[in-house]
Amino acid sequence: MSVTRRELITGAAAGATGLVVGGVLGKTLGGDDGGGGGGDSGLSGQAEAVAKARDLNSENVTRAVKTFVPPGAKPGDKNADEFFLFSSGGHSGQILVIGVPSMRLLKVIGVFAPEPWQGHGYGADSSDSVIKAGTDSKNKPSSAARGPLTWGDTHHPALSETKGEYDGRFVYINDRANGRIAMVDLRDFKTKQILDVPNLDSSHGGVFCTPNTEYVHISTMSPTLVDPSKAEKALETFKDSFRGYSTFLKVDQKTGKMDLAQSFQVELPPYTQDLADSGKLSSEGWVFINSYNSEMASGGNLTGGKPIEVGASANDFDYMHIINWKKAETVVGSKSKVMNGMRVIPLETAVAEGILYLAPEPKSPHGVDVHPGGNYISVGGKLDPHVTIYGFDKIKAAIDGKQFEKNDPFGVPILKLDAVRAGSVEVGLGPLHTQYDDKGYGYISLFLDSAVAKFSVGEPYFKGADAFKLVDKLPVHYNIGHLVAMEGDTVKPAGKYLVALNKWSIDRFPVVGTLKPQNFQLVDLTGEKMEILTDMPIGIGEPHYVQGIRADRIKAWEVYPVGTNPLTMEKDPNAIADKGEKIQRTGSTVEIWSTVRRSQFKPDNISVKQGDKVIIHLTNIETTPDATHGFSIPRYNVNVSLDPGEAATVEFTADAKGAFAFYCTEFCSALHLEMQGWLLVS
Amino acid sequence: MSVTRRELITGAAAGATGLVVGGVLGKTLGGDDGGGGGGDSGLSGQAEAVAKARDLNSENVTRAVKTFVPPGAKPGDKNADEFFLFSSGGHSGQILVIGVPSMRLLKVIGVFAPEPWQGHGYGADSSDSVIKAGTDSKNKPSSAARGPLTWGDTHHPALSETKGEYDGRFVYINDRANGRIAMVDLRDFKTKQILDVPNLDSSHGGVFCTPNTEYVHISTMSPTLVDPSKAEKALETFKDSFRGYSTFLKVDQKTGKMDLAQSFQVELPPYTQDLADSGKLSSEGWVFINSYNSEMASGGNLTGGKPIEVGASANDFDYMHIINWKKAETVVGSKSKVMNGMRVIPLETAVAEGILYLAPEPKSPHGVDVHPGGNYISVGGKLDPHVTIYGFDKIKAAIDGKQFEKNDPFGVPILKLDAVRAGSVEVGLGPLHTQYDDKGYGYISLFLDSAVAKFSVGEPYFKGADAFKLVDKLPVHYNIGHLVAMEGDTVKPAGKYLVALNKWSIDRFPVVGTLKPQNFQLVDLTGEKMEILTDMPIGIGEPHYVQGIRADRIKAWEVYPVGTNPLTMEKDPNAIADKGEKIQRTGSTVEIWSTVRRSQFKPDNISVKQGDKVIIHLTNIETTPDATHGFSIPRYNVNVSLDPGEAATVEFTADAKGAFAFYCTEFCSALHLEMQGWLLVS
Repeated sequence: MSVTRRELITGAAAGATGLVVGGVLGKTLGGDDGGGGGGDSGLSGQAEAVAKARDLNSENVTRAVKTFVPPGAKPGDKNADEFFLFSSGGHSGQILVIGVPSMRLLKVIGVFAPEPWQGHGYGADSSDSVIKAGTDSKNKPSSAARGPLTWGDTHHPALSETKGEYDGRFVYINDRANGRIAMVDLRDFKTKQILDVPNLDSSHGGVFCTPNTEYVHISTMSPTLVDPSKAEKALETFKDSFRGYSTFLKVDQKTGKMDLAQSFQVELPPYTQDLADSGKLSSEGWVFINSYNSEMASGGNLTGGKPIEVGASANDFDYMHIINWKKAETVVGSKSKVMNGMRVIPLETAVAEGILYLAPEPKSPHGVDVHPGGNYISVGGKLDPHVTIYGFDKIKAAIDGKQFEKNDPFGVPILKLDAVRAGSVEVGLGPLHTQYDDKGYGYISLFLDSAVAKFSVGEPYFKGADAFKLVDKLPVHYNIGHLVAMEGDTVKPAGKYLVALNKWSIDRFPVVGTLKPQNFQLVDLTGEKMEILTDMPIGIGEPHYVQGIRADRIKAWEVYPVGTNPLTMEKDPNAIADKGEKIQRTGSTVEIWSTVRRSQFKPDNISVKQGDKVIIHLTNIETTPDATHGFSIPRYNVNVSLDPGEAATVEFTADAKGAFAFYCTEFCSALHLEMQGWLLVS
Repeated sequence: MSVTRRELITGAAAGATGLVVGGVLGKTLGGDDGGGGGGDSGLSGQAEAVAKARDLNSENVTRAVKTFVPPGAKPGDKNADEFFLFSSGGHSGQILVIGVPSMRLLKVIGVFAPEPWQGHGYGADSSDSVIKAGTDSKNKPSSAARGPLTWGDTHHPALSETKGEYDGRFVYINDRANGRIAMVDLRDFKTKQILDVPNLDSSHGGVFCTPNTEYVHISTMSPTLVDPSKAEKALETFKDSFRGYSTFLKVDQKTGKMDLAQSFQVELPPYTQDLADSGKLSSEGWVFINSYNSEMASGGNLTGGKPIEVGASANDFDYMHIINWKKAETVVGSKSKVMNGMRVIPLETAVAEGILYLAPEPKSPHGVDVHPGGNYISVGGKLDPHVTIYGFDKIKAAIDGKQFEKNDPFGVPILKLDAVRAGSVEVGLGPLHTQYDDKGYGYISLFLDSAVAKFSVGEPYFKGADAFKLVDKLPVHYNIGHLVAMEGDTVKPAGKYLVALNKWSIDRFPVVGTLKPQNFQLVDLTGEKMEILTDMPIGIGEPHYVQGIRADRIKAWEVYPVGTNPLTMEKDPNAIADKGEKIQRTGSTVEIWSTVRRSQFKPDNISVKQGDKVIIHLTNIETTPDATHGFSIPRYNVNVSLDPGEAATVEFTADAKGAFAFYCTEFCSALHLEMQGWLLVS
């Protein structure tokens, strides 16, 4: 439907009251401010004067023009944001969406923690049910006193893929603290599922999609105590009591939802599995998970034992797990056991069937990242100053040729390091995590050196003396954790930019209290040397891992077909059209069907008796983009956000007496303040 | 204590394990990237080439250099952020802190809604108790079934003032939905108090500090049903059943906390009080509150009545409330009644004592804003295209000369409009809210025209034909609600910038789903004409009102004195030093005193029995800025954030059996992942 500027601004199209509208400026949308547009290029005297007054040297002026997105820039403009970052929010429990190169925060998506602005978990049926379903108190340790889980520690977003490229449909993200995973639908940028994964009490960076999103993978981090009733002696019997699990959650291609019944796990030794990545192209069908604490240290620092930071760092090597999931698929069902509703391939079976192998990794490593071509696998040494690069061709050959050094304590064969290592580059102190560009280079974060190191891999990308070399190193500010290169996880990285996800900002930003923001530094990859462009403070959350996707791959909706329930993405059975409003009492239940539009709720007077169960079905009947309305009931902890076309149901018991002025929370129109009603509870 | 870069990066100063550290680059902090620094000014060929490739015309290049803050800019640098915005977060329930001119989001402060990244309301004693105390279920309608309030609709931040200028100590903010107010301490940017204000079921923009923060003011919005048990007939007896309240909350100058016992209210007619402002200088001692819906319309759109948007817009005039609080102070105690623990000056007494007057305002107005000089008071017509400017000198004279047109239905004298109006400027459609610059001009937002109008006031600022004139008008994108000029609420506005707080972004940003961000547009006030510089998407929340403060007025802490509890800002009685760790069992209570540092919790093994009450006292013994640690207990919904020096206590019942790997959530060191322990519940 075509909408004129006048309609958008005044709401006239939605049947608002006969408000006089004048003064429409008669210019096209977005074109009022001279944004973008070619023609007059070059730098004016005014810009020079400003740069001088603001003490911006030529290097900084160049940074400014490299990153500036003009007001009113349109998608596809040369000066518009070209990429989006989907960033974990850490223990904020959310996802942050950031534009590149402007580094503007476009959206915070509520995932594991309720978030009232977007009506996530404050009374609307769809999000309330998602959050509620996210705690499996039957099969997993859960505290009734502390209640169902209302936060998560998001670490690793995994965008859905098709043929190994991002396809912009869904994004998955784990909850490190509680062993859970969520799915966000990129049609409307809302969370549609939170799954409390059986047999996982934690998870870390072991989250990724297989190249056609057949599965989304998540593994344990701290291993799981298999029998929670055996907690008392658990640490003394660690080796026997704990296990890890590599989990393959089957994805419904239409909805993006994960289906437990079609999922499976491979049981792993109780090492602390850490990061993971999917094989691609030549390594498709395999996954790689690194780990640390193969020592299985568990602390005891008050009673004469070593703290875990010492105990877990003792050995020179830990283990990369190499898992053949295509083989595992064939074995599940016939050779799996069922634990807490999940089909699990036992550790012994995984060994016997050639599903699981180990390879040594130096030393408390962090990060396992598969090169776009599929053959090279980079592991950051963390406590070793090298990036160790494995070749999948070598791994395959070593497995076939049984080139094992020995078995681990659980009978899992350990490949000889020399047989599987393709190369090694000394990069600096504290190497953690690798991403790749469009020229075959890897970029690894160095936490202790506070830098990014750029390195080459082997043939066919780089030959002879050019292979496995450190080619550039860039100081960052400060103490980088992970990094993200644009589409750097996929079979076709875009290069151009990298973002250093720095953990310590120290003195980079104004002081805003004792809790400092993280620092995302945008880095230009297009020059001879890497170059920092800007510092972006992260105002909420502590991101860990980020994925960068081309903006044009995202095809988000601006409105819903009228009456859509976001959870089903279908018409809600209780959605109504204009004039369908009614109030119906059945015993002590009062059910209301309400339309929402500029600028009234209809009905706007609702009377109930104290103790009544109240069910309100709301339909936002707007069709105009941005015509979101809120619905809030004071004192009842209810705030629902209704986007154009959205339908939602709120159910509550009217146990508090009084007159409650429910109102529209999202500024919608000139008469937004008057968009209010009364709920009378007597 | 002096801290070297090596110490900051490696944690060596905090007694971490004997980790080898090398490769420190030997440069000073922050100076590695060529940020800032004078010398070579002017624009280089490289910048020109980039501008051309990115299609940035000279106007946009100028915008870029006007707003760019280089990586590593230090506070006080000419190119650093000069101001902070403290923005309401709307129904996110939070406060956003944004730097100007970079428009970067520096921090989201958790206020009314729990926020786990900063450990707000997830198990730490200080924030849990603040949130818990924020619902007065005894004196105010409260739903036991829906639980204590865990969200708020923040509209109006009010920075503390001394002699009418911002002093950077505290910021107060209201909760529109539930009639509450919170206080954030600007030493550590944390919420220290949430007060459920007696007799308020809602509040809107009636929040401000008196010029020396003697009081923070908050008024009703939707009027309060005085007796909640009379809900059934409330709308039919509106005039008698509902009242408004102008509330003066006494502020403790040392802590910033609001003290109910020394506070008072002035009872008002049940008009919908809206925005408010404090008198200053010549008008100090008075407050001004505007209102709409003097018609007292209450809807009934399903039963043949008029919707409120029509009913509330019928009259040509509504009423500005003019309140003499200095007079009220003298009358409280002797002539007030106590309602729900609050001393209230009844409406009749307020009239009799000359505390309350009304003045007509056209027409469903929005916004009452006192000019820096104290005399002029601007009111936006909203449904009338004028800004009406009152003179306090005229108001005073009219009161003294009893120039009343009549009384309202409640006996409150209404001043004659002609006697109190100093001037009027036709500005355009939908005028809402005014701020001022350093030259005496007012800037008013025009919602329907989607513009900002700049106007002059009267003498002595502007004389003759220059007085009360529209001097400039700037289109904004789109549908602006409020605006903020730097220090524009105070006796000494700074001018320079204005930010248009636009409600509809429509096509200004990439599509990130059906819920679109708001658009904050930075406007340059220093030229002949106002000019838009950038669009900033608001990724979380729906801001309403914002205050802009000079960055150098904020003197926030980077660390706490070791052992500080944020709630008391004093040493926590259970804080300990290194080597003070212990575990103590008394019956079925286990109490633990724990130190937290890079990179261990000590003790790291805690064993309890199922059903035990567990009390953990944590002290972050770090002294280095940015050395924040998290403390999270999986499955128990606990996440505590501990800044350097901070002490906190977590109490819970260990009702779930198992082995729980508690860990540090905030990336702190090379061995952050190993900073973990085990809680065994058997």
